[in-house]
Amino acid sequence: MTDTPKTPLLDRISRPADMKSLSDRELTQLAGELRAETVSAVSVTGGHLGAGLGVVELTVALHAVFDTPRDKIIWDVGHQCYPHKILTERRDRIRTLRMENGLSGFTKRSESPYDPFGAAHSSTSISAALGFAVARDLGGVIPEGLGDAIAVIGDGSMSAGMAYEAMNNAGHLKKRLIVILNDNEMSIAPPVGAMSAYLSRLYAEEPFQELKSAAKGAVSLLPYPFREGAKRAKDMIKGMTVGGTLFEQLGFSYLGPIDGHDMDQLLPVLRTVKARATGPILIHVLTKKGKGYGPAEAARDKGHATAKFNVVTGEQKKAPSNAPSYTNVYSDSLVQLAAEDDKICAITAAMPDGTGLNLFMERYPSRCFDVGIAEQHGVTFSAALAAGGMKPFCTMYSTFLQRGYDQVVHDVAIQRLPVRFAIDRAGLVGADGATHAGSFDIAFLANLPGFVVMAAADEAELKHMVATAAAYNDGPIAFRFPRGEGRGVDMPERGTPLEIGKGRMIREGNRVAIVSFGTRLEEVEKAAEALAAKGITPTIADARFAKPLDRDMILMLARDHEALITVEEGAIGGFGSHVAQLLAEEGIFDTGLKFRSMVLPDIFIDQASPEGMYAVAAMNAEHIEAKVLSTLGIAKIGAQRA
Amino acid sequence: MTDTPKTPLLDRISRPADMKSLSDRELTQLAGELRAETVSAVSVTGGHLGAGLGVVELTVALHAVFDTPRDKIIWDVGHQCYPHKILTERRDRIRTLRMENGLSGFTKRSESPYDPFGAAHSSTSISAALGFAVARDLGGVIPEGLGDAIAVIGDGSMSAGMAYEAMNNAGHLKKRLIVILNDNEMSIAPPVGAMSAYLSRLYAEEPFQELKSAAKGAVSLLPYPFREGAKRAKDMIKGMTVGGTLFEQLGFSYLGPIDGHDMDQLLPVLRTVKARATGPILIHVLTKKGKGYGPAEAARDKGHATAKFNVVTGEQKKAPSNAPSYTNVYSDSLVQLAAEDDKICAITAAMPDGTGLNLFMERYPSRCFDVGIAEQHGVTFSAALAAGGMKPFCTMYSTFLQRGYDQVVHDVAIQRLPVRFAIDRAGLVGADGATHAGSFDIAFLANLPGFVVMAAADEAELKHMVATAAAYNDGPIAFRFPRGEGRGVDMPERGTPLEIGKGRMIREGNRVAIVSFGTRLEEVEKAAEALAAKGITPTIADARFAKPLDRDMILMLARDHEALITVEEGAIGGFGSHVAQLLAEEGIFDTGLKFRSMVLPDIFIDQASPEGMYAVAAMNAEHIEAKVLSTLGIAKIGAQRA
Repeated sequence: MTDTPKTPLLDRISRPADMKSLSDRELTQLAGELRAETVSAVSVTGGHLGAGLGVVELTVALHAVFDTPRDKIIWDVGHQCYPHKILTERRDRIRTLRMENGLSGFTKRSESPYDPFGAAHSSTSISAALGFAVARDLGGVIPEGLGDAIAVIGDGSMSAGMAYEAMNNAGHLKKRLIVILNDNEMSIAPPVGAMSAYLSRLYAEEPFQELKSAAKGAVSLLPYPFREGAKRAKDMIKGMTVGGTLFEQLGFSYLGPIDGHDMDQLLPVLRTVKARATGPILIHVLTKKGKGYGPAEAARDKGHATAKFNVVTGEQKKAPSNAPSYTNVYSDSLVQLAAEDDKICAITAAMPDGTGLNLFMERYPSRCFDVGIAEQHGVTFSAALAAGGMKPFCTMYSTFLQRGYDQVVHDVAIQRLPVRFAIDRAGLVGADGATHAGSFDIAFLANLPGFVVMAAADEAELKHMVATAAAYNDGPIAFRFPRGEGRGVDMPERGTPLEIGKGRMIREGNRVAIVSFGTRLEEVEKAAEALAAKGITPTIADARFAKPLDRDMILMLARDHEALITVEEGAIGGFGSHVAQLLAEEGIFDTGLKFRSMVLPDIFIDQASPEGMYAVAAMNAEHIEAKVLSTLGIAKIGAQRA
Repeated sequence: MTDTPKTPLLDRISRPADMKSLSDRELTQLAGELRAETVSAVSVTGGHLGAGLGVVELTVALHAVFDTPRDKIIWDVGHQCYPHKILTERRDRIRTLRMENGLSGFTKRSESPYDPFGAAHSSTSISAALGFAVARDLGGVIPEGLGDAIAVIGDGSMSAGMAYEAMNNAGHLKKRLIVILNDNEMSIAPPVGAMSAYLSRLYAEEPFQELKSAAKGAVSLLPYPFREGAKRAKDMIKGMTVGGTLFEQLGFSYLGPIDGHDMDQLLPVLRTVKARATGPILIHVLTKKGKGYGPAEAARDKGHATAKFNVVTGEQKKAPSNAPSYTNVYSDSLVQLAAEDDKICAITAAMPDGTGLNLFMERYPSRCFDVGIAEQHGVTFSAALAAGGMKPFCTMYSTFLQRGYDQVVHDVAIQRLPVRFAIDRAGLVGADGATHAGSFDIAFLANLPGFVVMAAADEAELKHMVATAAAYNDGPIAFRFPRGEGRGVDMPERGTPLEIGKGRMIREGNRVAIVSFGTRLEEVEKAAEALAAKGITPTIADARFAKPLDRDMILMLARDHEALITVEEGAIGGFGSHVAQLLAEEGIFDTGLKFRSMVLPDIFIDQASPEGMYAVAAMNAEHIEAKVLSTLGIAKIGAQRA
């Protein structure tokens, strides 16, 4: 699709060991070629571009100075790892990024020994690096060996409490540990929070200047073996003033800030740290997201995530859309309601764009809160807003809501506070793979006393559910919806609050009833069409609620049919399990009911298209059709095909 | 049981409004009486003593200066709230603390408008206070009104990332918000982490001294309205040096440290803050846990949690134990294995005593890690230890493991790392009530691909499961066990690794098979005895594994019996749901099986004895007996009794 760039030096490097003979000047050239190759690869595959471009020099410098895979580089989140993958035996597959059977868009242990710890969720890297450092000192044995542990973490990821917990523990344990703060003043969204402002002050005061006298004096306070290196890097050291940086207060040595695109700063600093460091040290590196590729640098999100694009123009090749995305339907619906109800407010954990709340933020900035990558805080903050008479919509991806689970249980459910959980990216999500699948929320919410749990079957249903959540004030309520576009159904002008705990009948049939919870309804309807050709007319219902269940509807369907099949985009323990419990308690199984529950299978499913992932999960129309036939004891014609 | 103390002034106070006419001298006297009443009450009920004694003066001062319940005092964790409850319309019930139908041992919204936000898990208070502050500024309407929001948080709770997330957000939003750091150098265990060391340095340098010149100068930098108050409190202000305290770096004003037992410091500082504060402010208060009661001050844990006791001698009245506690069996078993395997290590999140790991810490200090109140970090740290070739036992209460759920999913399960989860306090826990119930772990772990999930039926089984976990290195494995004592069974000298996914038959019977998962087995056996008198001989099996299920055993039992009943100490979605899914997929329901699944009911159960709570849950022997009879279509004699 695109001409590959000329990369004579990079062509000689298939693993970091090949870099050891390169001069500093060649390493700088290598970085340039690596940048071009990264742009070329992502132009073909789409994916996270800006973050990788920001750490090209850092990637080269780390692999040149340290001895991977014995030394462990742990890329926080991991979406900046494409240059790292190119240098670590994976260049031949770099144009399969995020594709089915291709390379993961994140670091992944099963993919390479150069990925010692997988990522994809933010702010885990310091904890992981500390674990490797401690394992090393305790004599842990693994094939690659255990050397230095190096966490590379962005300033955005520093807003998560987990990073602080890890620093607090590392500062206490005093193990040799290297943390590189990759400060690009930019995570996914513009940064928020006091930490971000603090970092800005740290380097705004005297960036790249000669040491001031106070700091100069502080160099002599450093332990002797470190002093020489520190002196060599003296024009980069800062923060050794009386109070010290926040990092020093937590027990880290602090070096920086340095220019993360200048190999003449990176290489000597890393070499010094490698030679001299004793306890935990934080190196503050300033980089530019999207660095070196004009269209990315110019973009508002610095090329954070991109579709396939033309390298020369930067123009992205997005498929035309047929229907609004679920995210936009949610966003528009909420903004519409907020215009009429000044108690509605919205909370996001560093995902205003991904969740569509950027629109809400523009319209109602005083009622929209980006709390940072801080789901724990975000959930409890929402709970208190509800306790204070507001109507908070706590808007999170299913997979990230896992970060605030205890707070959902403890601060929301036990207190029965009316927090509205808008759960985006429910079910399988496609290119981001297993780490971003929203598989568990139905199960972990529906067993909480007092919770209402809904799933939208289409985009109009979603609009009704937003209205339902806004109108419901008796306790916690959640509604889930998938990534991607709606079905293209007619959209109502306004959402209408649904009756709590009532499903809807889609079509009446006989023999088998299929009860769907969520957007598999479309596949269920397709399956029904195929079955009609075989003379089978299933009854179809949309449960709408996993909790409270529509007991009357489900019991009626169970009694009127030979078989009942539930379908949901979630793991075991959710909707189907609640239906099974109801049927058991009511004695429906006692005399026979062909009950089946179609749930996500007991595997983590690698990235592919969402359709491809649902094929692996055996949850597309053909699988529903096959399930109906097998349940009724009818062999499916052609079921043996591959 | 104990003479109640003479409390003439306290007797006139039934709510904070009654304190408004008291002089400062009378408030000091009131504090003394409140302390005596607190000691007296806890001597009768048992409970958390030390924390409450440490905040007696602070409690009086806060209620004297602020206007509760319009102003919101949010006690972090809440176990220090007994004096607060005495002052807020609950003195008449204070001797029912933690008892069935009595007052909760924590703050609780449903109990009083003076408890604006319930607690019991650590480090939620700043998030909650920020939510109330924002709701106030957005015009939220609640019956009590919305005034100041005041979080009172201990230094131990500051080790949790959630507290940092909240400060980071608060420093950004700049709302008027008051955080009182109650620094007693003591949480449940001696404090750990760099933050704790930092706090010690903060006040060790110049406690209670006149301001130094640098700080003096800084007073003039304060906004004008605040300056006067600051000057009055000038001998208490500190930290306004160049670097500033960590709290200032996060956007808070910082006041302190002040003596939290000196009303002459507390009252003027709080009055000043109330009159002048604009943005977020942190008041650093030094207190002594157990203050003013000799036996508590002298205790190693400063009277953290106590049984009923004699007020004069401090002697606790503990019931003699008949069998070792599950916690001790776990602890002893792990220490025994660690002597032979130097790769075994142990992780606790600030609960070395509660989890029994204090013993491990004494024997193998280099292999035992107290990470602070930091479950997120603790889980990922454990994952990396496993990746580094160690055998980590991540030891947490079920309810606190919820804090690290995403890390369990993402860093452990997806990577299939052999972290051993020792899950204490599984099921209902008694006096700590709903907030500490371990209800959800079976469901939220057993639906994770690749997890092994066990529950011990008795203390010997627990010993085998510890050995099983130590021997198993193929992926994550968890074993759960309850609070309290074992059954008194014979203990093996050594644990023997169990075959993964194999249950055990307890007794052969007919008609009905009861499959137990966990310590309800004892109740199942009692029920079987009662049923034998009615001519019914149930088959009984101990599943041992919720995942992987012993498919052969369960299918055999289902085929050989008219009815199959599962029993577990957990909410829906766990063991019983997995059994139901197996039975459904195998077509067992098609021709009829009387299947029932006994799980915790869909309510949060208030504190009582564990037996009392299981009675509410309908999961004791009599309920199992009744379930068997009703399932088989036999009315239970006497089943109608209350």
